Amino acid sequence: MSSVKSRTRSDYGYFLTYRTRWSDNDIYNHLNNVVYNILIDSVVNSYLITHCGMMPAASPSIGLMVSSSCTFVSSCAFPAVLELGLRVNKLGTSSVTYEVGIFEEGVEGVKAVGGFTHVFCDSVHRRPMRLLRAYREGLERLLVRTNGEEEEEEEAVRHRSAKL
Amino acid sequence: MSSVKSRTRSDYGYFLTYRTRWSDNDIYNHLNNVVYNILIDSVVNSYLITHCGMMPAASPSIGLMVSSSCTFVSSCAFPAVLELGLRVNKLGTSSVTYEVGIFEEGVEGVKAVGGFTHVFCDSVHRRPMRLLRAYREGLERLLVRTNGEEEEEEEAVRHRSAKL
Amino acid sequence: MSSVKSRTRSDYGYFLTYRTRWSDNDIYNHLNNVVYNILIDSVVNSYLITHCGMMPAASPSIGLMVSSSCTFVSSCAFPAVLELGLRVNKLGTSSVTYEVGIFEEGVEGVKAVGGFTHVFCDSVHRRPMRLLRAYREGLERLLVRTNGEEEEEEEAVRHRSAKL
Amino acid sequence: MSSVKSRTRSDYGYFLTYRTRWSDNDIYNHLNNVVYNILIDSVVNSYLITHCGMMPAASPSIGLMVSSSCTFVSSCAFPAVLELGLRVNKLGTSSVTYEVGIFEEGVEGVKAVGGFTHVFCDSVHRRPMRLLRAYREGLERLLVRTNGEEEEEEEAVRHRSAKL
Repeated sequence: MSSVKSRTRSDYGYFLTYRTRWSDNDIYNHLNNVVYNILIDSVVNSYLITHCGMMPAASPSIGLMVSSSCTFVSSCAFPAVLELGLRVNKLGTSSVTYEVGIFEEGVEGVKAVGGFTHVFCDSVHRRPMRLLRAYREGLERLLVRTNGEEEEEEEAVRHRSAKL
Repeated sequence: MSSVKSRTRSDYGYFLTYRTRWSDNDIYNHLNNVVYNILIDSVVNSYLITHCGMMPAASPSIGLMVSSSCTFVSSCAFPAVLELGLRVNKLGTSSVTYEVGIFEEGVEGVKAVGGFTHVFCDSVHRRPMRLLRAYREGLERLLVRTNGEEEEEEEAVRHRSAKL
Repeated sequence: MSSVKSRTRSDYGYFLTYRTRWSDNDIYNHLNNVVYNILIDSVVNSYLITHCGMMPAASPSIGLMVSSSCTFVSSCAFPAVLELGLRVNKLGTSSVTYEVGIFEEGVEGVKAVGGFTHVFCDSVHRRPMRLLRAYREGLERLLVRTNGEEEEEEEAVRHRSAKL
Repeated sequence: MSSVKSRTRSDYGYFLTYRTRWSDNDIYNHLNNVVYNILIDSVVNSYLITHCGMMPAASPSIGLMVSSSCTFVSSCAFPAVLELGLRVNKLGTSSVTYEVGIFEEGVEGVKAVGGFTHVFCDSVHRRPMRLLRAYREGLERLLVRTNGEEEEEEEAVRHRSAKL
């Protein structure tokens, strides 16, 4: 029912456009799936830098990835232009779970939906710390309060993460 | 309890060694997490080519990725040499779920554990088809019969995939 | 005097904009130099596909790279947006030499200038063949007739290539 | 006559082996040419770290690339294993010009020959500085004193670089 495969652009609050690169295509003449992971990482860090005040080389707190996942719905190929939509599905004390929907310019259906969890750590010892206020304020603007059905889905993910 | 974070080399049946590259490090001076996804894809396709008879540009059946995930346990950095262990967690009629453990040469604990599901499709129309016999025979050699606890964990994943 | 370091946007006839990616930065907190090579390859192949009728997986003639070079003028960093300008410096019977200037959005001076030589080959046996008419027509629109000073510079490159 | 295309393994003093990755192949079913640049960068920085005492995130002096080039001789494809040979062609006061020959395991002829020039800079202000003694000592061990014919070739390169 409520599946990420039916995500639309209206499910996301922040968008960036990325042009694909020649090297993104693999020998099957479509984007190598890993390119979606690369772009997901890019839109998240862009948002942190431009809307949350993060400076990767200078901030006292940096986001380290603890897990990631992606579901691939249909393929696309260079030289497509991709539109990446970002939302925050969970905002904890020191961790954030992002979801990114990947669309192709001029195409309606979603191409892939993925995301990952960042734990924010102090940049020197890399131990978890409370989210800086500026990070929290920026990320709250993209937070989606999910209904029961989606919570159930997230429960399955948490259950899995706990076991993993 | 039974968590992927406690995986050891003995949990995997096939190994390849990959030297990291300068471009793998990000500005946090450790491997960009996406590099693990790239290497996971590489060890799986290497095995399919060298042990299952797959020829990416010529075979009637190719594996298309439908979902992927990765859990990151601890970091490492260029110029580390990585050892990737491969196993098959699920072997269906047309789909295969791989798990890969990533270790650093000379270091005991696992660095990351990830994997993905391939659906094998005919290379022309890209519709699902039964696994070719040579693929099945090669992959069965890496199949791990999981016990109850792990099945429960996989159930959570299936549950999630179904909803996704 | 006439150096690629003084190139401006007006030296190029075709432009595409590329957003940088998180993984493009290396540990020195600027773009890994190889990213420029990746983008140069991308703008050239984009032009061949969208303006010359090339279809990488289906055309009877494909461009294979025989040599490449790049001069790096100043650095830039994720999440910069880059503007790539393309020109053709030499158009032979079966080969083409491209030059690409890389600029950062909102910045005047050039960041890097690079290029490469394609030899067009039949896609099956990969032996050199005359440029297809559609390719030639598309590429001629970007051909820059160079004056004596630049020819001298190119002579040095050719001299070198001949020896290499 | 004396062309880089006739380079053999005996022309290089230091070797590292790199396994190719699935994502290295492009849609022409051979390595994307940029992969050679990535590997050239990797073997040079590996040598600097393991034989010259460079620590990328902590050393007072880092190498910044000012120009690069590569000549492609014949192609190879994933899952090939590559052997990269390194030599130093020129060792100046603050700059170093490296040459790397790329061979495929089990194959005699060279696949590609490329290289680049590093200018060593202080890591804070990124201005050129004299090579640290440990760097110079490590790099001298790979320095190849070239004969007249090769010097002439290098002269062409320098001529070109000066103009560029």
